Amino acid sequence: MKILQVGSSGVIGRAVTAELGQRHQIVTASRSTGEFRVDIEDPRSVENLFQQVGEFDALVCAAGAVHFAPLAEFSVGQYAVGLQSKLMGQVNLVRSGLKYLRDGGSFTLTSGPTNDDPIPLGTSSAMVNGALEGFVRGAAIELRRDRRINLVSPTMLEESASLFGSYFMGTKGVATSDVVQGYVKSVEGAQTGCVYRIGWSRDR
Amino acid sequence: MKILQVGSSGVIGRAVTAELGQRHQIVTASRSTGEFRVDIEDPRSVENLFQQVGEFDALVCAAGAVHFAPLAEFSVGQYAVGLQSKLMGQVNLVRSGLKYLRDGGSFTLTSGPTNDDPIPLGTSSAMVNGALEGFVRGAAIELRRDRRINLVSPTMLEESASLFGSYFMGTKGVATSDVVQGYVKSVEGAQTGCVYRIGWSRDR
Ligand SMILES: NC(=O)c1ccc[n+]([C@@H]2O[C@H](COP(=O)([O-])OP(=O)(O)OC[C@H]3O[C@@H](n4cnc5c(N)ncnc54)[C@H](OP(=O)(O)O)[C@@H]3O)[C@@H](O)[C@H]2O)c1
Ligand SMILES: NC(=O)c1ccc[n+]([C@@H]2O[C@H](COP(=O)([O-])OP(=O)(O)OC[C@H]3O[C@@H](n4cnc5c(N)ncnc54)[C@H](OP(=O)(O)O)[C@@H]3O)[C@@H](O)[C@H]2O)c1
Repeated sequence: MKILQVGSSGVIGRAVTAELGQRHQIVTASRSTGEFRVDIEDPRSVENLFQQVGEFDALVCAAGAVHFAPLAEFSVGQYAVGLQSKLMGQVNLVRSGLKYLRDGGSFTLTSGPTNDDPIPLGTSSAMVNGALEGFVRGAAIELRRDRRINLVSPTMLEESASLFGSYFMGTKGVATSDVVQGYVKSVEGAQTGCVYRIGWSRDR
Repeated sequence: MKILQVGSSGVIGRAVTAELGQRHQIVTASRSTGEFRVDIEDPRSVENLFQQVGEFDALVCAAGAVHFAPLAEFSVGQYAVGLQSKLMGQVNLVRSGLKYLRDGGSFTLTSGPTNDDPIPLGTSSAMVNGALEGFVRGAAIELRRDRRINLVSPTMLEESASLFGSYFMGTKGVATSDVVQGYVKSVEGAQTGCVYRIGWSRDR
Protein backbone atom coordinates (compact mmCIF):
# COMPACT_ATOMS: atom_id res chain seq x y z
CA MET A 1 0.00 0.00 0.00
CA LYS A 2 0.93 3.65 -0.46
CA ILE A 3 0.30 5.26 2.94
CA LEU A 4 0.34 9.01 3.55
CA GLN A 5 1.42 9.73 7.15
CA VAL A 6 0.65 13.27 8.34
CA GLY A 7 2.50 14.25 11.52
CA SER A 8 5.26 11.81 10.69
CA SER A 9 7.86 13.48 12.90
CA GLY A 10 5.77 13.28 16.08
CA VAL A 11 5.90 10.77 18.91
CA ILE A 12 3.02 8.74 17.46
CA GLY A 13 3.81 9.45 13.80
CA ARG A 14 7.40 8.22 14.04
CA ALA A 15 6.31 4.94 15.62
CA VAL A 16 3.48 4.33 13.13
CA THR A 17 5.80 5.10 10.21
CA ALA A 18 8.40 2.65 11.55
CA GLU A 19 5.83 -0.15 11.93
CA LEU A 20 3.83 0.29 8.72
CA GLY A 21 7.04 1.09 6.80
CA GLN A 22 8.11 -2.53 7.24
CA ARG A 23 5.34 -3.66 4.91
CA HIS A 24 4.25 -0.58 2.92
CA GLN A 25 5.44 2.52 1.10
CA ILE A 26 5.13 5.49 3.48
CA VAL A 27 4.87 9.08 2.27
CA THR A 28 5.59 11.49 5.13
CA ALA A 29 4.30 15.02 5.72
CA SER A 30 4.18 17.74 8.37
CA ARG A 31 4.68 21.53 8.57
CA SER A 32 8.47 21.38 8.86
CA THR A 33 9.73 17.86 8.13
CA GLY A 34 9.00 14.88 5.87
CA GLU A 35 8.81 14.47 2.11
CA PHE A 36 5.94 16.97 1.82
CA ARG A 37 5.07 20.15 3.74
CA VAL A 38 1.49 20.70 4.83
CA ASP A 39 -0.36 22.77 7.40
CA ILE A 40 -3.58 20.86 8.04
CA GLU A 41 -5.24 24.04 9.37
CA ASP A 42 -5.11 25.54 5.87
CA PRO A 43 -7.51 23.88 3.39
CA ARG A 44 -5.45 25.10 0.42
CA SER A 45 -2.25 23.65 1.84
CA VAL A 46 -4.07 20.34 2.32
CA GLU A 47 -5.42 20.36 -1.24
CA ASN A 48 -1.93 21.16 -2.48
CA LEU A 49 -0.51 18.19 -0.56
CA PHE A 50 -2.85 15.76 -2.31
CA GLN A 51 -2.13 17.27 -5.72
CA GLN A 52 1.54 16.49 -5.13
CA VAL A 53 1.07 13.07 -3.50
CA GLY A 54 -1.60 11.81 -5.89
CA GLU A 55 -3.62 8.66 -5.26
CA PHE A 56 -2.99 6.62 -2.13
CA ASP A 57 -4.35 3.62 -0.23
CA ALA A 58 -4.35 4.94 3.33
CA LEU A 59 -3.99 8.21 5.17
CA VAL A 60 -2.90 8.27 8.81
CA CYS A 61 -3.03 11.56 10.70
CA ALA A 62 -1.33 11.97 14.08
CA ALA A 63 -1.17 15.76 14.15
CA GLY A 64 -3.19 18.62 15.60
CA ALA A 65 -3.11 20.99 18.55
CA VAL A 66 -5.56 22.02 21.26
CA HIS A 67 -5.27 24.67 23.97
CA PHE A 68 -5.55 23.80 27.67
CA ALA A 69 -6.93 26.33 30.17
CA PRO A 70 -9.41 26.60 33.04
CA LEU A 71 -13.05 26.67 31.92
CA ALA A 72 -13.57 30.08 33.54
CA GLU A 73 -10.65 31.61 31.61
CA PHE A 74 -11.11 30.01 28.17
CA SER A 75 -11.54 32.55 25.34
CA VAL A 76 -13.37 31.97 22.08
CA GLY A 77 -10.01 32.28 20.31
CA GLN A 78 -8.49 29.57 22.50
CA TYR A 79 -11.35 27.19 21.69
CA ALA A 80 -10.78 28.02 18.02
CA VAL A 81 -7.22 26.62 18.20
CA GLY A 82 -8.46 23.07 18.70
CA LEU A 83 -11.42 23.47 16.34
CA GLN A 84 -9.15 24.69 13.52
CA SER A 85 -6.16 22.44 14.12
CA LYS A 86 -6.95 19.03 15.63
CA LEU A 87 -10.61 18.96 14.51
CA MET A 88 -10.96 20.75 11.16
CA GLY A 89 -7.32 20.01 10.27
CA GLN A 90 -8.13 16.31 10.27
CA VAL A 91 -11.50 16.91 8.62
CA ASN A 92 -9.71 18.90 5.89
CA LEU A 93 -7.55 15.84 5.19
CA VAL A 94 -10.67 13.71 4.73
CA ARG A 95 -12.55 16.31 2.65
CA SER A 96 -9.68 16.82 0.21
CA GLY A 97 -8.31 13.30 0.46
CA LEU A 98 -11.60 11.72 -0.63
CA LYS A 99 -10.80 12.47 -4.26
CA TYR A 100 -7.42 10.71 -4.00
CA LEU A 101 -8.24 7.73 -1.76
CA ARG A 102 -8.33 4.50 -3.77
CA ASP A 103 -11.14 1.93 -3.59
CA GLY A 104 -10.84 -0.14 -0.42
CA GLY A 105 -8.58 2.48 1.17
CA SER A 106 -8.82 4.03 4.61
CA PHE A 107 -8.49 7.18 6.68
CA THR A 108 -7.19 6.90 10.25
CA LEU A 109 -7.48 9.96 12.49
CA THR A 110 -6.32 10.53 16.07
CA SER A 111 -8.26 11.79 19.10
CA GLY A 112 -7.71 11.06 22.82
CA PRO A 113 -9.68 10.09 25.97
CA THR A 114 -10.77 13.45 27.40
CA ASN A 115 -14.28 13.50 25.95
CA ASP A 116 -15.29 10.50 28.01
CA ASP A 117 -12.65 10.63 30.75
CA PRO A 118 -12.32 14.39 31.32
CA ILE A 119 -9.38 16.23 32.90
CA PRO A 120 -9.14 19.69 34.45
CA LEU A 121 -8.28 22.38 31.87
CA GLY A 122 -9.48 20.00 29.15
CA THR A 123 -12.82 21.37 27.91
CA SER A 124 -11.37 22.15 24.46
CA SER A 125 -9.64 18.80 24.21
CA ALA A 126 -12.87 17.07 25.26
CA MET A 127 -14.87 19.05 22.71
CA VAL A 128 -12.47 18.24 19.88
CA ASN A 129 -12.12 14.55 20.72
CA GLY A 130 -15.90 14.17 20.98
CA ALA A 131 -16.32 15.97 17.65
CA LEU A 132 -13.82 13.61 16.01
CA GLU A 133 -15.73 10.57 17.28
CA GLY A 134 -18.96 11.94 15.86
CA PHE A 135 -17.37 12.91 12.56
CA VAL A 136 -15.73 9.52 12.04
CA ARG A 137 -18.95 7.62 12.73
CA GLY A 138 -20.86 9.96 10.45
CA ALA A 139 -18.31 9.81 7.64
CA ALA A 140 -18.05 6.02 7.80
CA ILE A 141 -21.62 5.53 6.59
CA GLU A 142 -21.14 7.95 3.69
CA LEU A 143 -17.92 6.53 2.25
CA ARG A 144 -18.42 4.39 -0.84
CA ARG A 145 -16.31 1.89 -2.84
CA ASP A 146 -15.29 -0.04 0.30
CA ARG A 147 -13.42 2.91 1.69
CA ARG A 148 -13.16 3.15 5.46
CA ILE A 149 -12.48 5.59 8.29
CA ASN A 150 -11.52 4.94 11.90
CA LEU A 151 -10.27 6.87 14.90
CA VAL A 152 -7.43 5.93 17.26
CA SER A 153 -8.01 7.31 20.75
CA PRO A 154 -4.90 6.68 22.85
CA THR A 155 -4.62 7.75 26.44
CA MET A 156 -1.39 9.58 27.37
CA LEU A 157 1.67 7.79 26.03
CA GLU A 158 4.39 6.74 28.52
CA GLU A 159 6.74 8.53 26.17
CA SER A 160 4.79 11.79 26.65
CA ALA A 161 4.43 11.56 30.44
CA SER A 162 7.14 14.14 31.08
CA LEU A 163 5.17 16.63 28.93
CA PHE A 164 1.58 15.81 29.87
CA GLY A 165 1.75 13.83 33.12
CA SER A 166 0.64 16.77 35.25
CA TYR A 167 -2.51 17.15 33.13
CA PHE A 168 -3.35 13.44 33.30
CA MET A 169 -3.05 12.71 37.04
CA GLY A 170 -3.90 9.09 37.80
CA THR A 171 -3.46 7.98 34.20
CA LYS A 172 -1.11 5.08 33.53
CA GLY A 173 0.81 5.95 30.38
CA VAL A 174 0.41 3.52 27.52
CA ALA A 175 3.32 1.98 25.56
CA THR A 176 3.88 3.53 22.14
CA SER A 177 3.96 0.01 20.70
CA ASP A 178 0.41 -0.55 21.97
CA VAL A 179 -0.79 2.69 20.40
CA VAL A 180 0.71 1.68 17.06
CA GLN A 181 -1.52 -1.41 17.02
CA GLY A 182 -4.60 0.81 16.73
CA TYR A 183 -3.28 2.29 13.51
CA VAL A 184 -2.28 -1.15 12.21
CA LYS A 185 -5.78 -2.49 12.86
CA SER A 186 -7.37 0.46 11.13
CA VAL A 187 -5.11 0.39 8.06
CA GLU A 188 -4.59 -3.35 7.58
CA GLY A 189 -7.92 -4.56 9.01
CA ALA A 190 -11.37 -4.22 7.50
CA GLN A 191 -13.45 -2.32 10.06
CA THR A 192 -14.97 1.13 9.63
CA GLY A 193 -16.55 3.75 11.89
CA CYS A 194 -14.58 2.42 14.87
CA VAL A 195 -12.92 4.19 17.77
CA TYR A 196 -9.89 2.21 18.92
CA ARG A 197 -9.40 3.15 22.57
CA ILE A 198 -5.82 2.36 23.54
CA GLY A 199 -5.07 2.20 27.26
CA TRP A 200 -8.52 3.21 28.46
CA SER A 201 -12.16 2.11 28.19
CA ARG A 202 -15.28 4.18 27.72
CA ASP A 203 -17.48 3.48 30.69
CA ARG A 204 -16.09 3.38 34.15
CA MET B 1 -35.83 29.31 40.62
CA LYS B 2 -35.11 31.96 38.02
CA ILE B 3 -34.55 30.03 34.79
CA LEU B 4 -33.19 31.57 31.59
CA GLN B 5 -34.59 29.71 28.55
CA VAL B 6 -32.69 30.39 25.31
CA GLY B 7 -34.57 29.27 22.19
CA SER B 8 -37.86 29.72 24.00
CA SER B 9 -39.95 30.02 20.83
CA GLY B 10 -38.79 26.68 19.37
CA VAL B 11 -40.48 23.29 19.41
CA ILE B 12 -38.44 22.15 22.40
CA GLY B 13 -38.13 25.58 24.05
CA ARG B 14 -41.89 26.18 24.12
CA ALA B 15 -42.55 22.83 25.77
CA VAL B 16 -39.78 23.24 28.36
CA THR B 17 -40.97 26.75 29.19
CA ALA B 18 -44.54 25.51 29.66
CA GLU B 19 -43.46 22.71 32.01
CA LEU B 20 -40.86 24.54 34.10
CA GLY B 21 -43.01 27.68 34.11
CA GLN B 22 -45.53 25.87 36.31
CA ARG B 23 -43.05 25.90 39.19
CA HIS B 24 -40.43 28.56 38.38
CA GLN B 25 -39.89 32.04 36.99
CA ILE B 26 -38.88 31.71 33.32
CA VAL B 27 -36.94 34.40 31.47
CA THR B 28 -37.18 33.84 27.70
CA ALA B 29 -34.71 34.75 24.95
CA SER B 30 -34.02 34.16 21.25
CA ARG B 31 -32.98 36.21 18.22
CA SER B 32 -36.47 37.45 17.38
CA THR B 33 -38.87 36.65 20.23
CA GLY B 34 -38.99 36.45 24.01
CA GLU B 35 -38.25 38.95 26.76
CA PHE B 36 -34.62 39.34 25.68
CA ARG B 37 -32.93 39.24 22.25
CA VAL B 38 -29.72 37.28 21.84
CA ASP B 39 -27.75 35.71 19.03
CA ILE B 40 -25.77 32.91 20.68
CA GLU B 41 -23.26 32.92 17.81
CA ASP B 42 -22.08 36.37 18.88
CA PRO B 43 -20.12 36.37 22.17
CA ARG B 44 -20.88 40.07 22.73
CA SER B 45 -24.61 39.54 22.28
CA VAL B 46 -24.42 36.70 24.81
CA GLU B 47 -22.50 38.81 27.32
CA ASN B 48 -25.03 41.59 26.82
CA LEU B 49 -27.90 39.15 27.53
CA PHE B 50 -26.44 38.22 30.92
CA GLN B 51 -25.80 41.85 31.83
CA GLN B 52 -29.51 42.49 31.29
CA VAL B 53 -30.80 39.29 32.91
CA GLY B 54 -28.45 39.30 35.90
CA GLU B 55 -28.06 36.36 38.25
CA PHE B 56 -30.06 33.20 37.64
CA ASP B 57 -30.44 29.64 38.94
CA ALA B 58 -30.62 27.68 35.70
CA LEU B 59 -29.98 28.20 32.02
CA VAL B 60 -31.64 25.94 29.44
CA CYS B 61 -30.57 26.23 25.81
CA ALA B 62 -32.58 24.60 23.01
CA ALA B 63 -31.19 26.63 20.11
CA GLY B 64 -28.53 26.24 17.46
CA ALA B 65 -28.21 25.33 13.79
CA VAL B 66 -26.14 22.86 11.78
CA HIS B 67 -25.87 22.37 8.03
CA PHE B 68 -26.71 19.02 6.38
CA ALA B 69 -24.94 17.94 3.17
CA PRO B 70 -23.17 14.94 1.63
CA LEU B 71 -19.68 14.34 3.01
CA ALA B 72 -18.16 14.72 -0.45
CA GLU B 73 -19.76 18.16 -0.93
CA PHE B 74 -19.32 19.69 2.53
CA SER B 75 -17.35 22.96 2.55
CA VAL B 76 -15.31 24.36 5.41
CA GLY B 77 -17.84 27.20 5.65
CA GLN B 78 -20.72 24.75 5.94
CA TYR B 79 -18.97 22.93 8.81
CA ALA B 80 -18.41 26.35 10.41
CA VAL B 81 -22.20 26.91 10.64
CA GLY B 82 -22.62 24.14 13.21
CA LEU B 83 -19.37 24.93 15.01
CA GLN B 84 -20.33 28.59 15.44
CA SER B 85 -24.04 28.16 16.14
CA LYS B 86 -25.01 24.92 17.89
CA LEU B 87 -21.54 24.22 19.37
CA MET B 88 -19.85 27.53 20.23
CA GLY B 89 -23.22 29.27 20.63
CA GLN B 90 -24.01 26.99 23.55
CA VAL B 91 -20.41 27.16 24.82
CA ASN B 92 -20.67 30.98 24.72
CA LEU B 93 -23.70 30.75 27.01
CA VAL B 94 -21.68 28.71 29.51
CA ARG B 95 -18.54 30.88 29.27
CA SER B 96 -20.41 34.13 29.88
CA GLY B 97 -23.12 32.64 32.06
CA LEU B 98 -20.61 31.29 34.59
CA LYS B 99 -20.30 34.71 36.18
CA TYR B 100 -24.08 34.95 36.66
CA LEU B 101 -25.00 31.38 37.62
CA ARG B 102 -25.82 31.14 41.30
CA ASP B 103 -24.41 28.51 43.69
CA GLY B 104 -26.12 25.17 43.14
CA GLY B 105 -27.41 26.29 39.73
CA SER B 106 -27.25 24.43 36.45
CA PHE B 107 -26.66 24.70 32.72
CA THR B 108 -28.64 22.40 30.39
CA LEU B 109 -27.60 22.24 26.75
CA THR B 110 -29.10 20.34 23.80
CA SER B 111 -27.46 17.96 21.32
CA GLY B 112 -28.98 15.02 19.39
CA PRO B 113 -28.26 11.37 18.50
CA THR B 114 -26.19 11.65 15.31
CA ASN B 115 -22.75 11.33 16.88
CA ASP B 116 -23.47 7.78 18.00
CA ASP B 117 -26.31 6.89 15.64
CA PRO B 118 -25.20 8.57 12.41
CA ILE B 119 -27.38 9.56 9.46
CA PRO B 120 -26.50 10.34 5.84
CA LEU B 121 -25.66 14.05 5.31
CA GLY B 122 -25.03 14.32 9.04
CA THR B 123 -21.24 14.63 9.48
CA SER B 124 -21.54 18.19 10.80
CA SER B 125 -24.41 17.30 13.12
CA ALA B 126 -22.42 14.29 14.37
CA MET B 127 -19.34 16.45 14.94
CA VAL B 128 -21.25 19.10 16.85
CA ASN B 129 -23.22 16.66 19.00
CA GLY B 130 -20.03 14.73 19.86
CA ALA B 131 -18.29 17.98 20.72
CA LEU B 132 -21.15 18.98 23.02
CA GLU B 133 -20.92 15.64 24.87
CA GLY B 134 -17.20 16.12 25.39
CA PHE B 135 -17.59 19.74 26.44
CA VAL B 136 -20.32 19.00 28.98
CA ARG B 137 -18.35 16.18 30.60
CA GLY B 138 -15.24 18.34 30.69
CA ALA B 139 -17.03 21.40 32.07
CA ALA B 140 -18.84 19.36 34.75
CA ILE B 141 -15.60 18.56 36.58
CA GLU B 142 -14.48 22.19 36.54
CA LEU B 143 -17.64 23.82 37.86
CA ARG B 144 -17.46 24.80 41.55
CA ARG B 145 -19.95 25.83 44.24
CA ASP B 146 -22.28 22.88 43.50
CA ARG B 147 -23.02 24.16 40.04
CA ARG B 148 -23.90 21.58 37.41
CA ILE B 149 -24.07 21.04 33.67
CA ASN B 150 -25.91 18.38 31.65
CA LEU B 151 -26.83 17.68 28.07
CA VAL B 152 -30.20 16.57 26.71
CA SER B 153 -29.83 14.46 23.56
CA PRO B 154 -33.27 13.82 22.08
CA THR B 155 -33.80 11.83 18.94
CA MET B 156 -36.12 13.39 16.35
CA LEU B 157 -39.33 14.68 17.93
CA GLU B 158 -42.66 13.39 16.58
CA GLU B 159 -43.57 17.05 16.29
CA SER B 160 -40.63 17.62 13.91
CA ALA B 161 -41.12 14.52 11.75
CA SER B 162 -42.61 16.50 8.88
CA LEU B 163 -39.44 18.63 8.80
CA PHE B 164 -36.75 16.04 9.52
CA GLY B 165 -38.33 12.62 8.89
CA SER B 166 -36.58 12.14 5.56
CA TYR B 167 -33.19 12.66 7.27
CA PHE B 168 -33.99 10.22 10.08
CA MET B 169 -35.28 7.19 8.19
CA GLY B 170 -36.16 4.35 10.57
CA THR B 171 -36.27 6.62 13.60
CA LYS B 172 -39.41 6.55 15.71
CA GLY B 173 -40.15 10.14 16.69
CA VAL B 174 -40.23 10.83 20.41
CA ALA B 175 -43.03 12.65 22.21
CA THR B 176 -42.25 16.25 23.15
CA SER B 177 -43.47 15.49 26.67
CA ASP B 178 -40.76 12.80 26.98
CA VAL B 179 -38.07 15.21 25.80
CA VAL B 180 -39.17 17.77 28.38
CA GLN B 181 -38.42 15.26 31.15
CA GLY B 182 -34.70 15.39 30.28
CA TYR B 183 -34.66 19.13 30.97
CA VAL B 184 -36.69 18.68 34.17
CA LYS B 185 -34.23 16.07 35.45
CA SER B 186 -31.27 18.27 34.66
CA VAL B 187 -32.72 21.45 36.21
CA GLU B 188 -34.59 20.03 39.21
CA GLY B 189 -32.40 16.97 39.85
CA ALA B 190 -28.87 16.88 41.26
CA GLN B 191 -26.76 15.12 38.62
CA THR B 192 -23.93 16.67 36.62
CA GLY B 193 -21.90 15.72 33.55
CA CYS B 194 -24.78 13.60 32.25
CA VAL B 195 -26.12 13.04 28.77
CA TYR B 196 -29.86 12.35 28.90
CA ARG B 197 -30.63 10.34 25.77
CA ILE B 198 -34.35 10.65 25.04
CA GLY B 199 -35.81 8.09 22.67
CA TRP B 200 -32.54 6.32 21.82
CA SER B 201 -29.69 4.47 23.54
CA ARG B 202 -25.99 4.67 22.91
CA ASP B 203 -24.86 1.19 21.96
CA ARG B 204 -26.83 -0.88 19.56
N1 LIG C 1 1.34 11.95 22.87
C1 LIG C 1 0.29 11.56 23.56
O1 LIG C 1 0.39 11.18 24.75
C2 LIG C 1 -1.07 11.58 22.91
C3 LIG C 1 -2.12 10.87 23.51
C4 LIG C 1 -3.39 10.92 22.92
C5 LIG C 1 -3.60 11.64 21.77
N2 LIG C 1 -2.55 12.33 21.20
C6 LIG C 1 -2.83 13.09 19.98
O2 LIG C 1 -2.08 12.56 18.93
C7 LIG C 1 -1.70 13.60 18.03
C8 LIG C 1 -0.20 13.54 17.84
O3 LIG C 1 0.39 13.59 19.12
P1 LIG C 1 1.98 13.49 19.30
O4 LIG C 1 2.25 13.49 20.77
O5 LIG C 1 2.53 12.40 18.46
O6 LIG C 1 2.38 14.94 18.73
P2 LIG C 1 3.84 15.56 18.48
O7 LIG C 1 4.92 14.68 19.00
O8 LIG C 1 3.75 16.98 18.94
O9 LIG C 1 3.91 15.54 16.87
C9 LIG C 1 2.97 16.22 16.10
C10 LIG C 1 3.25 15.93 14.65
O10 LIG C 1 2.28 16.60 13.86
C11 LIG C 1 2.90 17.60 13.05
N3 LIG C 1 1.97 18.75 13.06
C12 LIG C 1 1.57 19.50 14.10
N4 LIG C 1 0.72 20.46 13.69
C13 LIG C 1 0.58 20.30 12.35
C14 LIG C 1 -0.17 20.99 11.35
N5 LIG C 1 -0.96 22.05 11.64
N6 LIG C 1 -0.08 20.56 10.07
C15 LIG C 1 0.70 19.50 9.75
N7 LIG C 1 1.42 18.81 10.66
C16 LIG C 1 1.37 19.21 11.94
C17 LIG C 1 4.24 17.86 13.72
O11 LIG C 1 5.24 18.29 12.82
P3 LIG C 1 5.43 19.85 12.46
O12 LIG C 1 5.58 20.59 13.76
O13 LIG C 1 6.65 19.86 11.59
O14 LIG C 1 4.23 20.26 11.71
C18 LIG C 1 4.59 16.44 14.18
O15 LIG C 1 5.03 15.66 13.09
C19 LIG C 1 -2.20 14.91 18.66
O16 LIG C 1 -3.43 15.27 18.09
C20 LIG C 1 -2.41 14.54 20.10
O17 LIG C 1 -3.44 15.30 20.72
C21 LIG C 1 -1.30 12.30 21.74
N1 LIG D 1 -36.74 19.13 16.91
C1 LIG D 1 -36.09 17.97 16.95
O1 LIG D 1 -36.55 16.92 16.47
C2 LIG D 1 -34.73 17.93 17.62
C3 LIG D 1 -34.20 16.67 17.97
C4 LIG D 1 -32.93 16.62 18.56
C5 LIG D 1 -32.23 17.78 18.79
N2 LIG D 1 -32.78 19.00 18.44
C6 LIG D 1 -31.97 20.20 18.71
O2 LIG D 1 -32.63 21.01 19.64
C7 LIG D 1 -32.37 22.38 19.35
C8 LIG D 1 -33.70 23.10 19.22
O3 LIG D 1 -34.46 22.42 18.24
P1 LIG D 1 -35.95 22.86 17.88
O4 LIG D 1 -36.48 21.87 16.89
O5 LIG D 1 -36.71 23.18 19.14
O6 LIG D 1 -35.61 24.22 17.10
P2 LIG D 1 -36.61 25.32 16.51
O7 LIG D 1 -38.04 24.91 16.63
O8 LIG D 1 -36.06 25.69 15.17
O9 LIG D 1 -36.37 26.54 17.52
C9 LIG D 1 -35.11 27.09 17.68
C10 LIG D 1 -35.19 28.12 18.77
O10 LIG D 1 -33.88 28.67 18.98
C11 LIG D 1 -33.88 30.06 18.61
N3 LIG D 1 -32.59 30.30 17.94
C12 LIG D 1 -32.13 29.75 16.80
N4 LIG D 1 -30.90 30.20 16.51
C13 LIG D 1 -30.57 31.06 17.50
C14 LIG D 1 -29.43 31.88 17.78
N5 LIG D 1 -28.35 31.90 16.95
N6 LIG D 1 -29.42 32.64 18.89
C15 LIG D 1 -30.49 32.63 19.73
N7 LIG D 1 -31.59 31.88 19.53
C16 LIG D 1 -31.64 31.12 18.43
C17 LIG D 1 -35.12 30.25 17.72
O11 LIG D 1 -35.65 31.55 17.78
P3 LIG D 1 -35.13 32.74 16.81
O12 LIG D 1 -35.19 32.20 15.40
O13 LIG D 1 -36.02 33.86 17.12
O14 LIG D 1 -33.70 33.00 17.23
C18 LIG D 1 -36.09 29.29 18.42
O15 LIG D 1 -36.57 29.87 19.61
C19 LIG D 1 -31.52 22.40 18.06
O16 LIG D 1 -30.16 22.53 18.40
C20 LIG D 1 -31.78 21.04 17.46
O17 LIG D 1 -30.66 20.57 16.71
C21 LIG D 1 -34.01 19.09 17.87
